[in-house]
Amino acid sequence: MTPYPLDGVRVLAFDTFGTVTDWFTGISAAVGATVPDVDAAEFTREWRRRYAPILARVESGELPWRRLDDLQTETLHDVASHFGVRLDDSSSATLVHAWRTIPGWPDAAPGIRRLKKRFIVCALSNGTVALLTEMAKRNGFAWDFVGGSDLWGHYKPARETYCGLAALFEADPGEVMMVAAHQADLDAARSFGLRTAFVDRPLEWGGAPHDDFGSADNDLHATDLDDLAYRLGC
Amino acid sequence: MTPYPLDGVRVLAFDTFGTVTDWFTGISAAVGATVPDVDAAEFTREWRRRYAPILARVESGELPWRRLDDLQTETLHDVASHFGVRLDDSSSATLVHAWRTIPGWPDAAPGIRRLKKRFIVCALSNGTVALLTEMAKRNGFAWDFVGGSDLWGHYKPARETYCGLAALFEADPGEVMMVAAHQADLDAARSFGLRTAFVDRPLEWGGAPHDDFGSADNDLHATDLDDLAYRLGC
Repeated sequence: MTPYPLDGVRVLAFDTFGTVTDWFTGISAAVGATVPDVDAAEFTREWRRRYAPILARVESGELPWRRLDDLQTETLHDVASHFGVRLDDSSSATLVHAWRTIPGWPDAAPGIRRLKKRFIVCALSNGTVALLTEMAKRNGFAWDFVGGSDLWGHYKPARETYCGLAALFEADPGEVMMVAAHQADLDAARSFGLRTAFVDRPLEWGGAPHDDFGSADNDLHATDLDDLAYRLGC
Repeated sequence: MTPYPLDGVRVLAFDTFGTVTDWFTGISAAVGATVPDVDAAEFTREWRRRYAPILARVESGELPWRRLDDLQTETLHDVASHFGVRLDDSSSATLVHAWRTIPGWPDAAPGIRRLKKRFIVCALSNGTVALLTEMAKRNGFAWDFVGGSDLWGHYKPARETYCGLAALFEADPGEVMMVAAHQADLDAARSFGLRTAFVDRPLEWGGAPHDDFGSADNDLHATDLDDLAYRLGC
């Protein structure tokens, strides 16, 4: 009998925003309560669209390292300008903090607990340790380890994050599987030798169309974390 | 009404070896099974006595940074020589690995769970993230965060460990309470502004006398983690 091809995987590294949590619901509610007279759903999507580009500017060296909250504050003010509104410091702080209180997808907490019995389950996110810990406590995510970007001073898709987590667990990259609802995250992980699992999150953008369907290059494709647990033999 | 003096504490940082785990029982059993013809209890105590001094040599700059397992391998061979025995690589690896499988004190896992409802509960240990994660999974320690020495490249009682953990949680040192069965650890933590709680572990050295009783300088003195939870209002 040939061994199960994923037998060597010991560590599961989870993306958080969108993969285990529903940022659209949490942030659009906060925007609706804080920013008058804007389309909260569109404001939220526009803010999220500015997320990856500003992280890329940090990784390119154009901007110095700053924690995610500071970058989100900057993009929030850009979005507010775009919508022709002005946010005071208190509203801005409330909205940036809302990324710590976004709800988990219903399958996330039970799926993580199920996978934890067989694997080391970690967050590997561009959020900071403080942000991710608050998110985990609110949602009952029983992470074995919280891999925040501030541990490495780098943002995904930088090599330092994926390989940094593997090194902490004395693991070859092939012993670590990245789990995400975003193909770009998985493509980067795979380029550094990690295994990859795509998770469908069709409602990530609040029902608006998006083009993250997962490629055939991934080791696994799961409909949610329950399905992932089943496919990983848990 | 004056506020409860510890109201500001948000994060509890736990020492692990001796404070939440019973290294004597785990290691002496491993020594008994691996090293013939020695007094396993005395061999174990002698190995543990060599722990703090070699970490201090790293922090003084005399030795380069190496992870705890490598330092324990070195002190193990010293102890074996002291007892006139020779250990092969397999026995040595078995014994060093045994520090990952030592049992928790019976009150530890339930106490951590009780404290977790009100506080951010973290390991802050000289073990590595990999070691501490294996220890936690085996014992059901539901840490919110695993603060291994490899995150900072420093060993307690170095400032970088205590203040590094506080910084990850965006906390002033006074918002963090170090919990340990060792006064030296608490004295260092207090010198950097942390609060301190001493936990009695009279059996830490396997019933042999030791002199760690806790000083009057600590903010709290608890008989175990249940008692600590009670004293912290959990």
